[in-house]
Amino acid sequence: MLKAQYSSRGPVPQDVIEAVSEETPKPGSGQVLLEVLAAPINPSDVLTLTGDYGILPELPAVGGNEGVGRVAETGEGVSGLDHGQTVLLPVGSGTWSTHVLAEAKELVPLPNDADPKQLSMMTINPPTALLMLQEFVDLKEGDWVIQNAANSGVGGYLIRLAAQKGLHTVNVVRRESAVAGVAAQGGDVTLVDGPDLHKRVKEATGGADIRLGIDAVGGDATDHLANCLTAGSPVVNYGMMSGQPCQMSPANVVFRDISLRGFWLSRWFSQAGRDQQMAIYSEVTRQIASGALKAPIAAEYDVSDIKQAVAAAASAERDGKILVVPQH
Amino acid sequence: MLKAQYSSRGPVPQDVIEAVSEETPKPGSGQVLLEVLAAPINPSDVLTLTGDYGILPELPAVGGNEGVGRVAETGEGVSGLDHGQTVLLPVGSGTWSTHVLAEAKELVPLPNDADPKQLSMMTINPPTALLMLQEFVDLKEGDWVIQNAANSGVGGYLIRLAAQKGLHTVNVVRRESAVAGVAAQGGDVTLVDGPDLHKRVKEATGGADIRLGIDAVGGDATDHLANCLTAGSPVVNYGMMSGQPCQMSPANVVFRDISLRGFWLSRWFSQAGRDQQMAIYSEVTRQIASGALKAPIAAEYDVSDIKQAVAAAASAERDGKILVVPQH
Repeated sequence: MLKAQYSSRGPVPQDVIEAVSEETPKPGSGQVLLEVLAAPINPSDVLTLTGDYGILPELPAVGGNEGVGRVAETGEGVSGLDHGQTVLLPVGSGTWSTHVLAEAKELVPLPNDADPKQLSMMTINPPTALLMLQEFVDLKEGDWVIQNAANSGVGGYLIRLAAQKGLHTVNVVRRESAVAGVAAQGGDVTLVDGPDLHKRVKEATGGADIRLGIDAVGGDATDHLANCLTAGSPVVNYGMMSGQPCQMSPANVVFRDISLRGFWLSRWFSQAGRDQQMAIYSEVTRQIASGALKAPIAAEYDVSDIKQAVAAAASAERDGKILVVPQH
Repeated sequence: MLKAQYSSRGPVPQDVIEAVSEETPKPGSGQVLLEVLAAPINPSDVLTLTGDYGILPELPAVGGNEGVGRVAETGEGVSGLDHGQTVLLPVGSGTWSTHVLAEAKELVPLPNDADPKQLSMMTINPPTALLMLQEFVDLKEGDWVIQNAANSGVGGYLIRLAAQKGLHTVNVVRRESAVAGVAAQGGDVTLVDGPDLHKRVKEATGGADIRLGIDAVGGDATDHLANCLTAGSPVVNYGMMSGQPCQMSPANVVFRDISLRGFWLSRWFSQAGRDQQMAIYSEVTRQIASGALKAPIAAEYDVSDIKQAVAAAASAERDGKILVVPQH
């Protein structure tokens, strides 16, 4: 088997990760050997390699926090998991690998007839988008939301989830070349960021009240969103694509009562009840399996090409997710 | 009479304001002519002159939003206000003036034996300090709070009000020369700001949990406070002394759940009930009259010296409030 391993962290993420070969293990009692079908490279994975993420695993570690596999071999005492069954890989199990050895009781079976590449992205980005739409503001049908990094994985899911709820979206990107891809996702308005964003948003929405801002960029992009919001509304930050701290003018914070909040899926999970978690995952699984939720894929790489894959994922200039799709 | 008037706004506040002479008016029916005893120059007054404040009066306007006066002459039908009685000037009445003409029913009598200079500062800074301590976090005796601009008017009141509630304060200033004045106000810890603030705060407080940050500076000073807070706590901004937008790193916002909120007294008043407002003012009046709350005064100026007064108030290098104290 081949796995993408790192033994140190550093500013250039593709420099610290490498494909390492080892003997494919045999599943012990209660265990299952899985062939990995697909595993995405998320921004949080890149930040884990550079050492900038909120939780860092002990080293050496295998990259990848989510993905799907199929049952290749079952150990003694395992029942109800047929050979070939598609399953969700345990979160944080080092999914950029040809194989993963897992405890049978940790595995969640998934529909075998759904697209495994789409399912491989279901545990991080779609719940993030869904929860940011429902945890901060009590939005009603017809309300407006504005987000930047709209061409990101979360951004695409958010456009579709918002539309399903009858919400309107203003979608902001950092370059003209990203506009067409985002517009194709079905948002109401797509604009390139800039200091005059609020004027263009006002024009494009007919001066609509915008009650929630969602920021994955930071720097002055945060304040550009704040300028667009109705007084009393929050900007929710969940990412740092600019590498800059969030900026918000006292005019927005003090005079317009715009607040800055943060969303981190890991914290939500540590605080949410089991039934809240189940509700989120059932909704996401159902929608991805039915094809209602679908994310663009920019490129697919074998585990042996992990350095190229990570370099592509770390680049700002892509339109879709980078997937690790191991050859078997 | 002499009043400090401005007919335009501009970046240098002392350039737009000037002392203007006019005939002292006679009080009409139900009116009272007041001699102004003292009126402070607050940061919000300076921002009103530069055009950066959240509400701007129509031009031409007389500067000054708070102060105290004494009854000089009463019009027909006015009773219960003796000659010489100390009263609170109506908020926003253009208090940088030798005289103010007011409706008798708008006047709140104040204790004649209390210091009118201290009373003149009671409607803006002390309620701001008090409300920021009670509106955002449910603080308990023994809890810690951190604030910057601790040598400001609000900062000094906050130190005393916190101490009365059994709260501990970390007080941050921007220059070494301000430390002694702040320490004399009775705070627990006083430090000069810097990127390593959180390390020095940890050392000085023995690693105490700090549950509220209060920011009047903006720029990276906001993030310095955020670094000092216990996860899940807010930074409340109420001023922009650096002229820079508030900065907060996604590491604080996302991973540590630090939020950025704003406090504006005008909004609080427009939303608070009459009894909440009365409760705040009774507490503040009582404490100032008794001498328990007292703010340092850096200098006093006659209305004729309004340009020098405003220049002094706009300077970062002062230790105490600038007061307009008209000569009569």
